This record gives sequence, C-alpha cells and structure tokens, in this order.
Amino acid sequence: PESKLPALGTTIFTQMSALAQKHNAINLSQGFPDFDGPQYLRDRLAYHVSQGANQYAPMTGTAQLREAIAAKTEQIYGYAPDANTDITITAGATESLYIAITALVSKGDEVIAFDPSYDCYAPAVELAGGVMKRIQLQPPEFKVNWAEFADQVTDRTKLVIINTPHNPSATVWSHSDVEQLWQIIADKHIFVLSDEVYEHICFAPEGHASVLRHPELRQRAIAVSSFGKTYHMTGWRVGYCIAPAIISAELRKVHQYLTFSITTPVQLALADMLREAPEHWQELPAFYQAKRDRLAQGLENSRLKVLPSQGTYFLLVDYSDVSGLDDVAFCHWLTEHAGVAAIPMSVFCAAPFPHKLIRLCFAKQEATLDAAAERLCQL
Amino acid sequence: PESKLPALGTTIFTQMSALAQKHNAINLSQGFPDFDGPQYLRDRLAYHVSQGANQYAPMTGTAQLREAIAAKTEQIYGYAPDANTDITITAGATESLYIAITALVSKGDEVIAFDPSYDCYAPAVELAGGVMKRIQLQPPEFKVNWAEFADQVTDRTKLVIINTPHNPSATVWSHSDVEQLWQIIADKHIFVLSDEVYEHICFAPEGHASVLRHPELRQRAIAVSSFGKTYHMTGWRVGYCIAPAIISAELRKVHQYLTFSITTPVQLALADMLREAPEHWQELPAFYQAKRDRLAQGLENSRLKVLPSQGTYFLLVDYSDVSGLDDVAFCHWLTEHAGVAAIPMSVFCAAPFPHKLIRLCFAKQEATLDAAAERLCQL
Ligand SMILES: CSCCC(=O)C(=O)O
Ligand SMILES: CSCCC(=O)C(=O)O
Repeated sequence: PESKLPALGTTIFTQMSALAQKHNAINLSQGFPDFDGPQYLRDRLAYHVSQGANQYAPMTGTAQLREAIAAKTEQIYGYAPDANTDITITAGATESLYIAITALVSKGDEVIAFDPSYDCYAPAVELAGGVMKRIQLQPPEFKVNWAEFADQVTDRTKLVIINTPHNPSATVWSHSDVEQLWQIIADKHIFVLSDEVYEHICFAPEGHASVLRHPELRQRAIAVSSFGKTYHMTGWRVGYCIAPAIISAELRKVHQYLTFSITTPVQLALADMLREAPEHWQELPAFYQAKRDRLAQGLENSRLKVLPSQGTYFLLVDYSDVSGLDDVAFCHWLTEHAGVAAIPMSVFCAAPFPHKLIRLCFAKQEATLDAAAERLCQL
Repeated sequence: PESKLPALGTTIFTQMSALAQKHNAINLSQGFPDFDGPQYLRDRLAYHVSQGANQYAPMTGTAQLREAIAAKTEQIYGYAPDANTDITITAGATESLYIAITALVSKGDEVIAFDPSYDCYAPAVELAGGVMKRIQLQPPEFKVNWAEFADQVTDRTKLVIINTPHNPSATVWSHSDVEQLWQIIADKHIFVLSDEVYEHICFAPEGHASVLRHPELRQRAIAVSSFGKTYHMTGWRVGYCIAPAIISAELRKVHQYLTFSITTPVQLALADMLREAPEHWQELPAFYQAKRDRLAQGLENSRLKVLPSQGTYFLLVDYSDVSGLDDVAFCHWLTEHAGVAAIPMSVFCAAPFPHKLIRLCFAKQEATLDAAAERLCQL
C-alpha cells in the first residue's frame, strides 16, 4: 500500500529500548519506572477481576473513575469538571491526544506546537490533514517568546498544543505563560490541547500551571493526563481528557469508534486508588525530586553538564565536553560502549537542533541510578 | 467546534443498554455475556500483575501473545503468520478496524461494505476522507450477489470490508463466497478488511470461512479478531490484526501514535490462556449453540419468528405478527413495556430497511434466557 505516513519510522522510544536490550545497557531512554506501582492498586485490580467486573465499561469510562477524577481535579485546581459530560477515559494519554486532534483539526487547519515536542502530536495532525507550525525553543530554558508566538497565529490556526511539565526538556511553564497564551488567543477561534501527563511530577515552587486553573482558557482547552506516570504503571494504559461538554462530545465521537471503551477492572482499581490514597500523588514530587537529585549528584564528577529539571522524570545533560558526535550518534555510541541508553533531543525538533543534549530518565531505583552514574563518570 | 462527524450520535449499544438499565429490562441488546470468563485466565491476570508486569508492552504487542496467536492461527487455518511482522495487538478489535481503515484509505478512495454493517466501519472511513459504497443484503439469508458486487467495483475502490460470522445478521459466509470475492478483486489494487471477531462462534458445518485460509487473498487482507468474545471478557479490550508485513507496517504507524501499546499484564494472561487451554475455544461452538437453541426453543410458543443463526451470539427474530411499529420504535416499546432490550436492525443500514427484525443476544445464563423468553411469549 501507498503510505499515508511515508516519513514515519519507529518511535525513538522503541528503537532505544531495543538497542538497550541488545547491548544489555542500563536503560535510561524510554520513560518508565523500573519499580512497581502501589501494592494497594495492584490488589484492587485483582479484586475487581475476581468480582467479575470484566465486561464492557461505559463508552466514556466508568462512573466511579470519572467521579474520582472530578473530585481530585476540584481539590487540586479549584475547578470541578462535570463527571458525566466533561471527562473521557482513554487508552493512555496517547489516545486522548489522538482523539482531540482528530476531532478538532480539519484539512488545511494550522496547528501550532513548540519544539522539542513529543513525537505523537505531528502524525495525528498529518492524518487529520492539518498543517504543523512549529516554534523552536532553545536550551537551557526552552522559554516561549510570546511575541514570536503571536506572529505565528493566523486565521487558519485551529489548535495550539502545549505541554507542561515538558517532555523532553524537563522545563515547566509558569502561570504567566498560560495567561499570555490566553491573551493572544482570547478573541480567536483557537483551541488548546494541553498535555499534562506529568502534572504530579512538578518541582517548581509555584506548582503545576494547569490550564484547568484558568477560568477562561479552560473553556477552550482539552487537558490530558494519565495514570501511568502517577502510579508507576505505564503498562496499564489508562489516561483521560477533561474538556467542556461541547468539545468532549466531539472527542467522544472519535473515541467511540476507535477503542470504544477502556479495560473495566483497571478503571475500577484506579478509582479506588484515587479515592482512598490521595497521599500517593501528594508525595510524588518529593519522591521523584530525591531521584532527580541522586542522579544529578552522581554526575557531579563526570564530564557531563546537568541542566535543571523542574518537572517530569527526565534530566537533560550536555555532553559537549565528552564527544563531538551529534546526539543521535552519541546515544548509539553511549548505549553500545558505555552501557547507558538515553534519548537524543534532536528527534523532537523539525528544525536543526545542533545542541549536544541527551535526555536521561530517572524513574529508576537508586541502585540503577548509581550504576548509570558510575558508568557515565567514566566518560 | 464544528463537528467532523456531524451526523453521528451515540452508538445504539450504549443507547439500548442505558434504556435497559433505566427500565430494569433484561438486556439482550448490547452483545456481552452476563457470566464470567475462565477462572484460569483471571488468575493469570492477577499473577502477572503481582509479578510486576506493569510497564509498557512492546508497541506491537508482547512476544508471548503474538507467538501464541501465530501458533493458534497455524493450527486452525493452516497458515502461520510471522509473529514479529504480521501480528499487531490492539485495544480491542475496534482499534484494529480503525487503524486498518486509517492506514489504507485516503481522500476520495471508495470503500465497499455490506449492509447491515457493524457501526464502527463508516465513521472511520469518513474521518479518512473515504467514500462508503454500501451493498444492501436482504433477509433472511443476507447473501451477497457477486455480480452486483462486481458492478460496484471501480478504479477508486481501495478496500472491501467483510464480516463473517456476521454481526448483526448471524449469517456466515461460505468458502465459496471468499473465493468469489477473490476472483473479482484478484487483478485490482484492492485490500480486504475482514472482521472475524466471532471466528470461534460459528455453527456452520463447513466451519468459519476465514480469509486466512485463502493463500492469495490473505496477501491482501487484514484479518481482525478479539479475545473479548472468545473468552467472555468484553471489558478487557484486547484484539489483534493479522496482515502481511508490508501492510502491517502501515497499520503500526497509526497504532504507534494512537494507543502506543496495550495493557501488559492482560496480554500475558491471554498468552497463557491461548497456550495452555486450547480446549476453551474448541468447545465454544457447542457452548453457544446450546444457548442459541435454548432461546430459540423458548420462543417457539411466542408470536416471534426466529431466523436461523449460523454464528455470533445473536439471533434475529421477526416481530411482524406482534406489532406494526418500525424496529427502532419497537425496541423502545419492548424495553419499556415488555422488559426485554433488543437491537433494531435498520440502524446498521444506510438504505431503508423496512423489515420487522430485531437482534437478541444469547450470550447469557440459562436463567436469563428463560426469563427473557417467558416475557417475549407474552407479547
Ligand atoms: C510511549 S513510550 C515513551 C514513554 C515516554 O513518554 C517517554 O519516554 O518520553
Ligand atoms: C462495542 S459495544 C457493542 C457490542 C457488540 O459488538 C454488539 O452488540 O454488536
């Protein structure tokens, strides 16, 4: 068949994890924990399976999970979405992002994203016939210049895709960034797709700048989150999106014929966890900050320069004192010869990204982080 | 937002299940068992969760499950797909159907389907910019007239969507149907998407006419199946598609950015079940035939005329001796006043379908079937 996505290869995460396995390297590339999620959550899954909660969930998600999400959202962001009309449970955050783009973007519509950008946005826009307009951000701060953004907005702009805490740069937006975005799009017909899967892994003192905190912007926004990151269960594949009823109705039309509904007993277990164990996500920033600091300290005596990480479970390091290779070549070399797998930053950018930066995942046990640091100190 | 699927409402299955619940009716509408799946399978899920198999599965599915599917496919259909390149695990059969259509259909391409047709095909074609051409089949046999099909094939035909055992008509194709399809498309660039989710619920003496049995057609086909039906676990949401590597590569590009990967511990449990308990699917036709016959016999003294069911867990009944209402109105009336929910057939047809036929699901415990039959005998 003729390819509808001719330029597309296998995602960098699959590539690097396979390479790590082949060379028996410590895998700090693809973002997933090498430890397990909460015992209580795993027990609840076994419980609901044993109780026969094994048939189709409602198309929009189980009421228990949607209600638990609504309650948590109100508690954290001071905004209570309607559990019936505003919340849709999906196959990971990935499906939420896909259905939002598919439902909102038509042929010729422009979509603005900020590079480096997570790799699943652009293919969905391409399949919908939309045109990606990418604004390249620069290290180390990856700050948006809002005047530059305003210049990119046209009559054809339909959607802006944002992401904070930001994967792969590990930077976060301030509340003022959200406000500036709003000021520019307020009088236009533009939607905002906000990837907030790392909402609970934010180390910034002012906290996570969710679009859900913004009373006007949230009327135009689809906020996407996931349980995989929050509960250390990336393999359970349950995410969700929150959007006003009128937008959610359109997303659900796509969801309905794309996955129909999501694994029932997993949804019920997650609802129990949200309701019964709020301390888990409350303690998450400290839990991950300790891991971040351990890896950063482990690299203090290396020739790698550590950039600040304000959120996500990633850390960027600059290897320019170690090698002149470009980042893709360096990541291959590092996996094969130093036994540590990482992710190159340039693959998330459409424009040339000549910086010598790679991304390390610190969602790992201390022993893993220490072993990786030891190897990296020998470079 | 402007709707990209303006004509689309909520699926009939969600509507009727909600109505059944509201009126406390016996729910023979949406197809799902009211009994649980195998204890062994549920135990294996709990086991893999407890063993920490909770992080991302490979994008294409776990090797264990793909290999188990390849082995089973060879055993049943005499054809061994390559577990690495030809099999992709998806979020239910629904995602398989969606990614196949999305990867293969471009703007202006024609897609031929046979009405009545399952409701998820057309929206995916519409989102891809394709044009549905529907061939209306007639009760009670719902037989394809292959000359009529040949007339519908044009230079723009890209895909034919077939489905046997057929939901909602409960009829099956013969091997000769598959051969006739092949003869017509052999010298054209046309793919076949074959929805075979009821492959193990086939009562026809000659067995299930899988496209995978056809040495030439399977080089152009995507065969879709699901574990929800086979293992009575419609809420687990794991399906798969089998297609030659060159086609699978394109489907996977869509899958990769749509759900990325499927619930890991569920995949591992299903792989164990496939390997260790082949008797389950071997015994399935007899298991469901007994249920079919029990419901049909229960209706012998009713004013409903039962049509033959050769596969799926559905049975059509003709209510023309009971009511002059159209089938949608009758299904509402039946739920509200007779306490039995069913699915109207006309919703699966683009052309007028003036027959007085409704679909009953017999994937139910004997007590449920008996109670429904008793109510229906009072009409
Ligand atoms: C979907 S696999 C990639 C996991 C991830 O989000 C990352 O590594 O950035
Ligand atoms: C996806 S809900 C519908 C279940 C089903 O396949 C049917 O009832 O036909």
